[in-house]
Amino acid sequence: MNELSTNHLLGIRDLSSADIELIFQTADSFKEVINRPIRKVPSLRDITVANMFFENSTRTKLSFELAEKRLSADVLNFSSSGSSVKKGETLIDTVNNILAMKVEMVVLRHPDPGAAAFLSRNVNAVVINAGDGTHEHPTQALLDAYSIREKRGRVKGLKVAIVGDIRHSRVALSNILCLQKLGAEVMLCGPSTLIPRQFAELGVKLSYDLDETLAWCDVANMLRIQLERQGSPDDVRYFPSIREYTMAYGLTRERLLKQNREILIMHPGPINRGVEITSDVADHKNSIILDQVENGVAIRMAVLFLLASKIRRN
Amino acid sequence: MNELSTNHLLGIRDLSSADIELIFQTADSFKEVINRPIRKVPSLRDITVANMFFENSTRTKLSFELAEKRLSADVLNFSSSGSSVKKGETLIDTVNNILAMKVEMVVLRHPDPGAAAFLSRNVNAVVINAGDGTHEHPTQALLDAYSIREKRGRVKGLKVAIVGDIRHSRVALSNILCLQKLGAEVMLCGPSTLIPRQFAELGVKLSYDLDETLAWCDVANMLRIQLERQGSPDDVRYFPSIREYTMAYGLTRERLLKQNREILIMHPGPINRGVEITSDVADHKNSIILDQVENGVAIRMAVLFLLASKIRRN
Amino acid sequence: MNELSTNHLLGIRDLSSADIELIFQTADSFKEVINRPIRKVPSLRDITVANMFFENSTRTKLSFELAEKRLSADVLNFSSSGSSVKKGETLIDTVNNILAMKVEMVVLRHPDPGAAAFLSRNVNAVVINAGDGTHEHPTQALLDAYSIREKRGRVKGLKVAIVGDIRHSRVALSNILCLQKLGAEVMLCGPSTLIPRQFAELGVKLSYDLDETLAWCDVANMLRIQLERQGSPDDVRYFPSIREYTMAYGLTRERLLKQNREILIMHPGPINRGVEITSDVADHKNSIILDQVENGVAIRMAVLFLLASKIRRN
Repeated sequence: MNELSTNHLLGIRDLSSADIELIFQTADSFKEVINRPIRKVPSLRDITVANMFFENSTRTKLSFELAEKRLSADVLNFSSSGSSVKKGETLIDTVNNILAMKVEMVVLRHPDPGAAAFLSRNVNAVVINAGDGTHEHPTQALLDAYSIREKRGRVKGLKVAIVGDIRHSRVALSNILCLQKLGAEVMLCGPSTLIPRQFAELGVKLSYDLDETLAWCDVANMLRIQLERQGSPDDVRYFPSIREYTMAYGLTRERLLKQNREILIMHPGPINRGVEITSDVADHKNSIILDQVENGVAIRMAVLFLLASKIRRN
Repeated sequence: MNELSTNHLLGIRDLSSADIELIFQTADSFKEVINRPIRKVPSLRDITVANMFFENSTRTKLSFELAEKRLSADVLNFSSSGSSVKKGETLIDTVNNILAMKVEMVVLRHPDPGAAAFLSRNVNAVVINAGDGTHEHPTQALLDAYSIREKRGRVKGLKVAIVGDIRHSRVALSNILCLQKLGAEVMLCGPSTLIPRQFAELGVKLSYDLDETLAWCDVANMLRIQLERQGSPDDVRYFPSIREYTMAYGLTRERLLKQNREILIMHPGPINRGVEITSDVADHKNSIILDQVENGVAIRMAVLFLLASKIRRN
Repeated sequence: MNELSTNHLLGIRDLSSADIELIFQTADSFKEVINRPIRKVPSLRDITVANMFFENSTRTKLSFELAEKRLSADVLNFSSSGSSVKKGETLIDTVNNILAMKVEMVVLRHPDPGAAAFLSRNVNAVVINAGDGTHEHPTQALLDAYSIREKRGRVKGLKVAIVGDIRHSRVALSNILCLQKLGAEVMLCGPSTLIPRQFAELGVKLSYDLDETLAWCDVANMLRIQLERQGSPDDVRYFPSIREYTMAYGLTRERLLKQNREILIMHPGPINRGVEITSDVADHKNSIILDQVENGVAIRMAVLFLLASKIRRN
């Protein structure tokens, strides 16, 4: 097989494990490319990609933009602030306007779950979901699984814990689906208020104790606590205080040392040093946080490259 | 003739009908270019264009930017938010600073009528007006007329209605001038509060009744109602409510069916579906809204290309 | 010598006069390049530069961006507004994330003195300081000295006055250091409230009288009065009113005529016409304000080019 089974990348849900394997193998060659002195390939030379970000996301946007440029695509950047979206235009009209300028691929970040899928049914372009609310964020899940595979040689059979704010996470669901498709076992760990009930139906283990979780797992993916949601007194509070969260669920050197095993440490960024993870753990030799970032460009190049062959020229 | 009679594009007022025809013919070839698999031409390879937007305008800016890139120009984007303009610098100083970095063409969007003309007299660069307040927006008028010509084979002799908020429109004046130069008849239609008195002096017909207007016209260009101007209770209200505006001046399928003729439907975007135009009409086979967007890139390529030959290297 | 003695450009303090001379000679050839019809050279074709601006700075950012593009570098633009910085991420984490995407050079603008130096010790990339608070802004100082050298044939032995708001200036310190290294004499002139005490220790002359200063100097570098700091009544006021500042320290034609000599007039921009400098003086034949801007691109090309050879590929 050398073609994806889908025409868009809307979520991990639509991918077969063969699709994921194809993306990983393609990323392997692009990872070689971006570590060469000359990092550009002409693969997307005649393709225009629009990065449409209806929410801020510095790192995802830069990663896609760099992937597109390394592939020699023409890049249009659109962000909703100060745009016609504020003037009452619908999402489809906004995107169709940009497509009418001859754009073949849309990378969409949108706060509403299902936005990318909705768009893919209504416009004539390849759509890549760069995060639709707390629903799917497939390229993040792919780069996470790819990073595990790179360090451990495989994903199958590994035990992966996802720790922290599952509720507000953009990446938890996609990660679970991707790891399961590749044959890993998944445990979610955090205060019960941050693990929505419906996640139990996904066939994952649940834990409310970080030490117990660490005793079980080969990989710990530490999610970000959204400090900005803890600021104002009107906010719903999901835990008593940052300090108490950190005491219960922060990953420290002491906690790691208690486990007499090598645990791979991941984080999707941006990190709150001293909150969900201490500085020494973030910079630990088993931490692959910056590898995740590097692999993000390779994975996105692979996805863009594989989907470019699906473009319908009309 | 294969050269424009002007060194800048400040407004339709300065163009002869031969100029407009030259722009259209040049756009014809660029439209072919942007529909080829390889859409780039090297025409502006050694030219740097600065897009200076002192007002938000997502679609006009993207359209110019894409036109510039298809012509292989180097592109600098400048927007006023967060810039030295806020620090008290004059427009001429801001632009001269950018020109000193060796920029040959300036695409200027500015809230003040006459800003582009003022600039063209004071700086050593080719100036293209991308909208100066409610005064002129020549590339929009050119792409509108070009889109009519494309669908109907000509503009001369056609009857074109411009419907809606003439008062706050950035495109009404340029459209009227362009259509008249090409030999079309123009009617303005809307509530009297939205049609300023001085428009009567331009030799256009006036109507306050949409059905009457539709009975007359071959083309209906529906302008956007600026909902954001109807928000606050302090605003001057030009009509009682959105609902009443829509009842009187919204273009619906029923209204179109009453006319037993093919009327070409245009809109400069962004559309308020269900306000000045219903969804089924916006997506109707006679609606050329997305063709306008596509033609915008071709027209802007033509203008940039023709004016590039006017650059004075000093 | 054809290599800089430093691996980063953090401040003028670290440069030898031979370094400065090498930068000037390199800028000479790039100045030729940017005045040719074809202005691009492939020197940085395989280098990615990230412009990381944690403060607004339209002109410095555009100048760097243009310099990078003329050198054929790949350019990533990052600005702090709407970024993960707001989410509590540290500067090093933000930069390391971007470096993990394979970026070799960082141009950093940051409000905190020492930010660039701190970064250079902690990340694996070439760092160029594009302004760290009121500390150093080395490329501005280099382009200023280069512009003097261009017009007067030398810097050594010249008398240069820096006039105005030394206290809030981003450029005063770097300018003093650069001019002294090149053998010029420097005088600071302004109200005593705007000349911090510690500047006296730098071996410069101080004056509180503009006419006296003009009688002494060959070059007058007029700094910008930050009108935005004089707006609200809560501000600390460093002088009674704009009008009184202008009467005492504004450079006017009359003041210049009293001196029966040619004085070179400089300003780092943006200008407040009628405040620190009158319009006729800003546009005077001895004013080299726009030459400074043009030379800024050449100087930045030279710095980028010379530092690119220091990149450690890992």
